[in-house]
Amino acid sequence: MAVRVAVAGASGYAGGEALRLLLAHPEVEIGALTGNSSAGQRLGALQPHLPPLADRVLEETTAEALAGHDVVLLALPHGRSAAVAEQLGDDVLVIDLGADFRLKNPADWEKYYGSPHAGTWPYGLPELPGARAALEGSKRIAVPGCYPTAVSLALAPAYAAGLAENEAVVVAASGTSGAGKALKPHLLGSEVMGSMSPYGVGGVHRHTPEMVQNLSAVAGEPVTVSFTPTLAPMSRGILATCSAKARPGVTAESVRAAYEKACADEPFVHLLPEGQWPATAAVYGSNAVQIQVAYDPVAHRIVAVSAIDNLTKGTAGGAVQSMNIALGLDETTGLSTIGVAP
Amino acid sequence: MAVRVAVAGASGYAGGEALRLLLAHPEVEIGALTGNSSAGQRLGALQPHLPPLADRVLEETTAEALAGHDVVLLALPHGRSAAVAEQLGDDVLVIDLGADFRLKNPADWEKYYGSPHAGTWPYGLPELPGARAALEGSKRIAVPGCYPTAVSLALAPAYAAGLAENEAVVVAASGTSGAGKALKPHLLGSEVMGSMSPYGVGGVHRHTPEMVQNLSAVAGEPVTVSFTPTLAPMSRGILATCSAKARPGVTAESVRAAYEKACADEPFVHLLPEGQWPATAAVYGSNAVQIQVAYDPVAHRIVAVSAIDNLTKGTAGGAVQSMNIALGLDETTGLSTIGVAP
Amino acid sequence: MAVRVAVAGASGYAGGEALRLLLAHPEVEIGALTGNSSAGQRLGALQPHLPPLADRVLEETTAEALAGHDVVLLALPHGRSAAVAEQLGDDVLVIDLGADFRLKNPADWEKYYGSPHAGTWPYGLPELPGARAALEGSKRIAVPGCYPTAVSLALAPAYAAGLAENEAVVVAASGTSGAGKALKPHLLGSEVMGSMSPYGVGGVHRHTPEMVQNLSAVAGEPVTVSFTPTLAPMSRGILATCSAKARPGVTAESVRAAYEKACADEPFVHLLPEGQWPATAAVYGSNAVQIQVAYDPVAHRIVAVSAIDNLTKGTAGGAVQSMNIALGLDETTGLSTIGVAP
Amino acid sequence: MAVRVAVAGASGYAGGEALRLLLAHPEVEIGALTGNSSAGQRLGALQPHLPPLADRVLEETTAEALAGHDVVLLALPHGRSAAVAEQLGDDVLVIDLGADFRLKNPADWEKYYGSPHAGTWPYGLPELPGARAALEGSKRIAVPGCYPTAVSLALAPAYAAGLAENEAVVVAASGTSGAGKALKPHLLGSEVMGSMSPYGVGGVHRHTPEMVQNLSAVAGEPVTVSFTPTLAPMSRGILATCSAKARPGVTAESVRAAYEKACADEPFVHLLPEGQWPATAAVYGSNAVQIQVAYDPVAHRIVAVSAIDNLTKGTAGGAVQSMNIALGLDETTGLSTIGVAP
Repeated sequence: MAVRVAVAGASGYAGGEALRLLLAHPEVEIGALTGNSSAGQRLGALQPHLPPLADRVLEETTAEALAGHDVVLLALPHGRSAAVAEQLGDDVLVIDLGADFRLKNPADWEKYYGSPHAGTWPYGLPELPGARAALEGSKRIAVPGCYPTAVSLALAPAYAAGLAENEAVVVAASGTSGAGKALKPHLLGSEVMGSMSPYGVGGVHRHTPEMVQNLSAVAGEPVTVSFTPTLAPMSRGILATCSAKARPGVTAESVRAAYEKACADEPFVHLLPEGQWPATAAVYGSNAVQIQVAYDPVAHRIVAVSAIDNLTKGTAGGAVQSMNIALGLDETTGLSTIGVAP
Repeated sequence: MAVRVAVAGASGYAGGEALRLLLAHPEVEIGALTGNSSAGQRLGALQPHLPPLADRVLEETTAEALAGHDVVLLALPHGRSAAVAEQLGDDVLVIDLGADFRLKNPADWEKYYGSPHAGTWPYGLPELPGARAALEGSKRIAVPGCYPTAVSLALAPAYAAGLAENEAVVVAASGTSGAGKALKPHLLGSEVMGSMSPYGVGGVHRHTPEMVQNLSAVAGEPVTVSFTPTLAPMSRGILATCSAKARPGVTAESVRAAYEKACADEPFVHLLPEGQWPATAAVYGSNAVQIQVAYDPVAHRIVAVSAIDNLTKGTAGGAVQSMNIALGLDETTGLSTIGVAP
Repeated sequence: MAVRVAVAGASGYAGGEALRLLLAHPEVEIGALTGNSSAGQRLGALQPHLPPLADRVLEETTAEALAGHDVVLLALPHGRSAAVAEQLGDDVLVIDLGADFRLKNPADWEKYYGSPHAGTWPYGLPELPGARAALEGSKRIAVPGCYPTAVSLALAPAYAAGLAENEAVVVAASGTSGAGKALKPHLLGSEVMGSMSPYGVGGVHRHTPEMVQNLSAVAGEPVTVSFTPTLAPMSRGILATCSAKARPGVTAESVRAAYEKACADEPFVHLLPEGQWPATAAVYGSNAVQIQVAYDPVAHRIVAVSAIDNLTKGTAGGAVQSMNIALGLDETTGLSTIGVAP
Repeated sequence: MAVRVAVAGASGYAGGEALRLLLAHPEVEIGALTGNSSAGQRLGALQPHLPPLADRVLEETTAEALAGHDVVLLALPHGRSAAVAEQLGDDVLVIDLGADFRLKNPADWEKYYGSPHAGTWPYGLPELPGARAALEGSKRIAVPGCYPTAVSLALAPAYAAGLAENEAVVVAASGTSGAGKALKPHLLGSEVMGSMSPYGVGGVHRHTPEMVQNLSAVAGEPVTVSFTPTLAPMSRGILATCSAKARPGVTAESVRAAYEKACADEPFVHLLPEGQWPATAAVYGSNAVQIQVAYDPVAHRIVAVSAIDNLTKGTAGGAVQSMNIALGLDETTGLSTIGVAP
């Protein structure tokens, strides 16, 4: 019997990507589609790339509209998920694509989001140690941020193997869809095409504490992250360049071995052959993560680079992957590692 | 039992797209992958977006390598297919993604390609009148050019209904992948980004006689096509703006009605609701065709616009669609109308 | 003594481009900068590419702010210029970058803009027959639309020489800056990158009557224009593909000769050598117009293609060129034909 | 009397940019234009954005062709400049846009370039301490690499003020023109559009020792640089994100003060107001450098970001700036800080 899934926030980029993936998921039946200002509109006018759903009309995001589903995906602005989630029964699998339930430390939440902490849900990055066990059978899942997904997967092998000092430096480039459909002047096509620019510099980006939380857990000690996000002239994709000083005795061989071991059994994380580097185009529309790592013997740093599609593995694909685990399905059901390139 | 498919020219864009689609095709098993200068290389180095085939090594394109398959897809430079095809048995389904067997008139071939005509195979644009019948059970298929696909589907409804005068004017924009992986200065990223430019102006583009052939057949009389292709700063997609003078008595309503009728039962051709216009982003990576049409009462012209993905519906998706028909499978098997957007 | 120029609407793309050009103009001193919602802001925050003006603060657009200048450039939304202009003295040169005073026929204005017609000013496309004489000493100038600039210059030589039938077909691609800084969903970078789409199809785009007006004047008889604009994934540039049926007896040679004659003495209009085609990248940031023309002997059409920078020759550069003529300066003062490429 | 300037390598991107700037230089007369495989071609076919030089024909790069000029700009592939330079008289100002004469340490050259070291010329980054004095009256100038220009200007203020530990981490994104016009598959438009990818990871990029040389000189002690370049989907621009651990006692205020002091009198280096961040679009085609800096109190790092146009300030503009100093002209002659945006 099909799993019935509702999507709240179906007009946005995260919601649209969730629908794209769910349409290809063999166990899923798509139920209610809801929106806020877009309620009453045809989905075909909002998401013209999804013809099978073109004639569906968005409902208001209410507890009534979302009732009667096995799974509810919340693709809402940050801070809105808690109020909706508490109206949904404990037997419904609620998957939050927003930030509300990612952080464990209420002080971190309050510092970065400026509102009371709503709680902490099992974290939907199955590749992290212990994550799959926490997701199995869970009825609540917090989907990671797109940057923390790329960065945690790039650096976790180094920290898990004790190869890196506990101060990481990350510079990541993101496509503009990571900023959503909000109408802001700096997101206009005329502004972003042909331009690279940073934002949230100096540790103020909200994804910083999430990276710190993940990498500290893997390292078993506090890790700091100097994180600089940049906006790149492309619609999709994150390229994260992550480095940390190598601990004494580290060699190119020990680094390679640690990454090979960490990625060996992961269905979506691909350590590339030596000499080949990640490119966001190669994971366009796919749930795959491309990773490569180098050891710089002069600067004595481990440099790991990862490429993901921010909307797929970084958002909706990660959500479906975790949903599969929670529901007891094969983790890869309905998800592909094949990108659309060139 | 799976259909075993070989791909000759697996290192190029058309070959890569064919593999992307075949990997998702439930009835297909991918057999030999061959190349020319790329023989001996790992596919993962050439097509990094296809991880399930990353460790496959390309063979030389020979009759031996291509033997023993149910289907052979030829994604070779123009003029190279005939020599390969004649070495393949009559019981093998040979699908040519090149131009060699598209034109019926040897004089057209010689004028536009400057070499002897190799012959004519059943034409793989199932939406044209009579095309499906010719493809059923066929062992040879000529896949249409990308521009002729977009243009023929946009204008055929008008000519089929007798609404348009027999002089069509077409201006089409194509993504750069339509020009293939050839190393030419004008295809460098530095040259194409931020720039639009025409080429092959004045009726000299090789896809012109193919459009003329298709539209004349539909109209039942000779149709001329003034065709101007332009190169657009994007990797994929064709937007074809096609117009013709309306015959006396034509109205907006009669135009709309003709298009609704023509598109009604087509699984891949979507006439958009009035007021919504095609966008190549909406068909990115999909086999869908978006069409819209307007009647200009002042200029007295019918203006039809179509959007396709040049590599999918315009090349490899069209090939798979025709392959399905030839093999007696459901025409839509393994093909999606869902685009990857934004 | 310097010419003192005020710019109303200095926060938008047209206003910013005007400032970029005026900063390089040896006879100009930049006076008041005004805005509407942006009044009170530093120009450096709105136009970060203009460091010499970074610390200037925008004033409200009022008659007082604009008083005391030799020239006032109005870069306002359509329909707003008349109210401002009538408060400026007859001795002030007022140059309207908006549409308000372009059309001669009030019925055309009312049909396409839906408001009362404000009047007609000398038309700032000096390359059209008679235009320079009307601009010399004029105190009011209507700057042409960006599309009409590209299209009129491409087709005027054919109509002036009596080579073309009076039904033109135009398909033009424009960069997104042509749509201005308005916050509309379809102008977001995520939507426009990687996509081509048409709009205003079927003769409804507001620039249509302006093209008709220009080409009919050149031809000496009514000319219809089937105009389809498309949005291209680039910030700047217009590529206009324009064609018309050739009159009997026209040859490739007669077409070439007509274009050579028409472009021979124009400082900004460059007919390219045969075999070379326009590219918008080549005129990026420049006031040049690249033109090429072909005669298609099968479709019997003249196909002319032009490339301009929509913000420079298509808007602010055209304004400065006409300002120079009106002020009795050399027409090319402060303007360059050199593009920024690649 | 005009300064007569020859450009060797006029067909490439660096040579073309040099010509663009020299055409606008009031003291310069452009002399011989030479090329290698492009000798004999019209410049208009190779650099269509430079109409004033369109009919010039490239000569072979020989001592004869380059004789009789006051200045010779060498825009040649790395390793080719020495042989040409030694044939030019000591009274000619020779400016090398290649790498040949940048490094002081022959061992660095041999390690990174694999050939014998040709020597060291005065270094054309006037903003570095002592650089202007070395350039005044010099007859030989080594123009810095594009990445070292962006990185050295971003970090020099921190090292000059003794604020930063001596291990820098740099991730920089470059437009594709930085890779030149070489016909390589990964530089095709189809490959670069929509994609970000790194290269030369782990300290192997040839610009690394140049950054080390510059920053160590400023710091007065050896500085290591972990440098990761990435290729961005745009034609022009470098965005360099540079960080280093702060020395004890450093505060946001002391960092700001150091950068304000360092940038105060520089005509081309603009420290942006607090809260505003660099964007490559803002310096498109200009010789300006946008810089912003933040202090991250949690990661305890100074993060400085710079944006330049890699072809202008990063190559040809830097060359003209240094030429002006060497010739005793005002340093800013013929150079603009105004970008072409949006």
